[in-house]
Amino acid sequence: MRVTRYYADHAWLGGHRTVPGIVVEVTGDRITALHQAGSPSPTGTTPRPGVAAPPSDAVHLRGVTLPGMANAHSHAFHRALRGRTQRERGTFWTWREQMYAVAARLTPDRYHALARAVYAEMALAGITCVGEFHYVHHDTGGRPYASPNAMSEALLAAAADAGIRITLLDTCYLRGGIGRPLEGPQLRFGDRDADAWAERAAGLKGGDHARIGAAVHSVRAVPDDQLGTVTGWARERGAPLHFHLSEQVAENEACLAAYGRTPAALLAEHGGLGPLSSAVHATHLTEKDIALLGGSRTTVCMCPTTERDLADGIGPARALADAGSPLSLGSDSNAVVDLVQEARGVELDERLATRHRGHWLAADLLRAATSDGHASLGWPEAGHLEVGAPADFVTVGLDSARMAGAPSDALLESVVFAATAEDIREVVVAGRRIVSNGRHLLIDDVPESLTSSITALTTPTPPTTTHAVASHSNTNTSDTGLSRGITGGHT
Amino acid sequence: MRVTRYYADHAWLGGHRTVPGIVVEVTGDRITALHQAGSPSPTGTTPRPGVAAPPSDAVHLRGVTLPGMANAHSHAFHRALRGRTQRERGTFWTWREQMYAVAARLTPDRYHALARAVYAEMALAGITCVGEFHYVHHDTGGRPYASPNAMSEALLAAAADAGIRITLLDTCYLRGGIGRPLEGPQLRFGDRDADAWAERAAGLKGGDHARIGAAVHSVRAVPDDQLGTVTGWARERGAPLHFHLSEQVAENEACLAAYGRTPAALLAEHGGLGPLSSAVHATHLTEKDIALLGGSRTTVCMCPTTERDLADGIGPARALADAGSPLSLGSDSNAVVDLVQEARGVELDERLATRHRGHWLAADLLRAATSDGHASLGWPEAGHLEVGAPADFVTVGLDSARMAGAPSDALLESVVFAATAEDIREVVVAGRRIVSNGRHLLIDDVPESLTSSITALTTPTPPTTTHAVASHSNTNTSDTGLSRGITGGHT
Repeated sequence: MRVTRYYADHAWLGGHRTVPGIVVEVTGDRITALHQAGSPSPTGTTPRPGVAAPPSDAVHLRGVTLPGMANAHSHAFHRALRGRTQRERGTFWTWREQMYAVAARLTPDRYHALARAVYAEMALAGITCVGEFHYVHHDTGGRPYASPNAMSEALLAAAADAGIRITLLDTCYLRGGIGRPLEGPQLRFGDRDADAWAERAAGLKGGDHARIGAAVHSVRAVPDDQLGTVTGWARERGAPLHFHLSEQVAENEACLAAYGRTPAALLAEHGGLGPLSSAVHATHLTEKDIALLGGSRTTVCMCPTTERDLADGIGPARALADAGSPLSLGSDSNAVVDLVQEARGVELDERLATRHRGHWLAADLLRAATSDGHASLGWPEAGHLEVGAPADFVTVGLDSARMAGAPSDALLESVVFAATAEDIREVVVAGRRIVSNGRHLLIDDVPESLTSSITALTTPTPPTTTHAVASHSNTNTSDTGLSRGITGGHT
Repeated sequence: MRVTRYYADHAWLGGHRTVPGIVVEVTGDRITALHQAGSPSPTGTTPRPGVAAPPSDAVHLRGVTLPGMANAHSHAFHRALRGRTQRERGTFWTWREQMYAVAARLTPDRYHALARAVYAEMALAGITCVGEFHYVHHDTGGRPYASPNAMSEALLAAAADAGIRITLLDTCYLRGGIGRPLEGPQLRFGDRDADAWAERAAGLKGGDHARIGAAVHSVRAVPDDQLGTVTGWARERGAPLHFHLSEQVAENEACLAAYGRTPAALLAEHGGLGPLSSAVHATHLTEKDIALLGGSRTTVCMCPTTERDLADGIGPARALADAGSPLSLGSDSNAVVDLVQEARGVELDERLATRHRGHWLAADLLRAATSDGHASLGWPEAGHLEVGAPADFVTVGLDSARMAGAPSDALLESVVFAATAEDIREVVVAGRRIVSNGRHLLIDDVPESLTSSITALTTPTPPTTTHAVASHSNTNTSDTGLSRGITGGHT
């Protein structure tokens, strides 16, 4: 197998500091050696202090090299809404109508094109693994595609094209709200019941770059008597299970009214919590909810840029971590694709909520963006710079005006609090270089790919191309009128 | 005089939308014509719909062209703290100690070098005018420089070097807190009394690119019987008057205890409010404070990225605007230099505080970043794309992955909610191109200028060069130990 050596000016190998002058040896898709340049330390031992010149045969990674980042919560198609939903003095509900209008126009072809471009944008931002919380399963009106997982397969192919890993979180979405049927575009999200969902989802296949997980959209979209089927499906497979949780106060109220317990308590009762589970948002919780989530080691996925955008509020991230929950991060609505901004958003929003600084160390936030995010997506071996781990890593440049002056003893803090996605220079996934000097090596023109795929979803007369794996492609978009009310949340 | 023509793909001329295909004619430092390409409309009339090709003799501005942005609140030297202050689980007070340690090491020479680089970073971010809230006036221990305004002059020269306009807000800073003397590094900030401040400040000279304003650091740093001298000084000159206001609850408590009124009421009583005044932060206000500020048309300067960083809380920006206060924006501590992020921060933080979306239109926020910001700095003629206005404008590119897919009918929204400083491509100030294709044309290597000037302020053995205008340069930095307590606020 081919061996490639990289030389990182600075690398984060865990702990609270970076280490200078690290040589990373990659064989195939794995890290096979890691040591400080010029040091005779054998494979896999802890590097010793001191810096040497880059070996002449090594690819030079200029800046701070981190493990690849995991974006633990994405709805790829929301990227088409960026900017658009800010036009008027809108509400959550005008936002949702626009989101549904785009959802109504997705076909496997169009979604493949858009997701490929969005995942390429993620790769440019240093994201090497995405958790796609996917619920647009069927054709218009809910008719199944000839290949029932045509949409999911389009997403798996898109991630492969963009060179990143994916966990396809196939989402069970059965109701438009507690006691409400699916309506309009929501019909595309629904399976007949959880058994039908489970049967369809069982047809999905992962691969080297792809794993399959399950999701409960929310306690509003999946009735209590169906929850156990989904949680059991995930448990049997050892697969990750994700769910939106308590993003809005109204969800809690509806859940309490219908079931006499909070969403967290309801999920706990039906086997939804545990170390392979992730609660997304977890914004409005009781003390008991926090204890349930933390005590069960359920990961909490925070999406600060989306939570700001959608006026969700500030979730108790620190209290959840103190109770035992690992933290992961998601770009969610993809109005912003920048995991570093998500990382600092957790700390900064906690500062706003508490009027105190310093809730999270930079290394804690980077752990959320890397190893803990990967674990929440069912890739526990990824997101570490260590021998034997998948060769996934990213380099943050220090050569921009933003990063200039970053002190060598506070590089992690400088990355978390000052960098942006724009500072990502190099990205390696499974030993393959996919971004170099800020350019995607597999997809030539990412902005153009985004523009054309978004235009196809937002112009009045869409093209009528048919995806190879789809047989019932239908571009009827008239049925977007949904009565407003508490339904499936923003997603 | 030399005439230059520019062709903007899209330009914001006010209102809620951009207009395509605008030709901007610049003669000397002014805009002398503005019309839609291909349209025969005479100089200065409203452009008509329709787009034409760029005229062959025009400089092509690719993207969205806006008036130049005004950064209404900056402490340039805080830039040296970026990243550094996030190292530990710090508090406001550890932050302030680090800030004082840097302040203690400033010399006119070193401050000139740092501010030149910071203002260049601002120029790259589309900031064409900075309001420098400047209080490090004297040498170590408070000894005056031979040229008593050596520090201010270094800042004025730095802005000229970087090609941007500046309003030097000479700040009166007399006490370390209500009833407390100045201590340690604070001695460098203080004049004997407000009369001494006024006399020194009267020696400052503006110029084509520079204007002079006044500042009261805060009601804690200037006793009530001294306030009138500063506010009168500004009023007599028609100069802008700025002050930090109610950034923390503790400031309000101390002010109420000492004077029996809130900081806003105290300033009102001493002539501090009005259309030429700006209250910076205005975070913790009473209803009556809001009425006083709004009713007097006092501008409110919000600095969201700093207010998050320092855990200040979320100020009532919308309520202040509804009461009559114009909004301006500031990068303040320069942990982030990105006025677009400040603009969206006002809306997003209001969403977090209220759990509702849509408090500000994108055009409102851009008005804060441009015309209202300039007005608050005493440049009411700037920050407008119109005939007769200073030729200050910036172009936001649409060619990044971030901006790809921005719809032509929501370009302002896309700029405010998706762009970053990195998307600024072209900057013209007073008819002079200072940034082209994202490169500063006057300062070759901005990151290197930042790195070297920050290193000079943060390494243990500083160089001992002496600035031309300084005679008592002193590098003694030992006296940084300040008792903790409620003193001058973070700045």
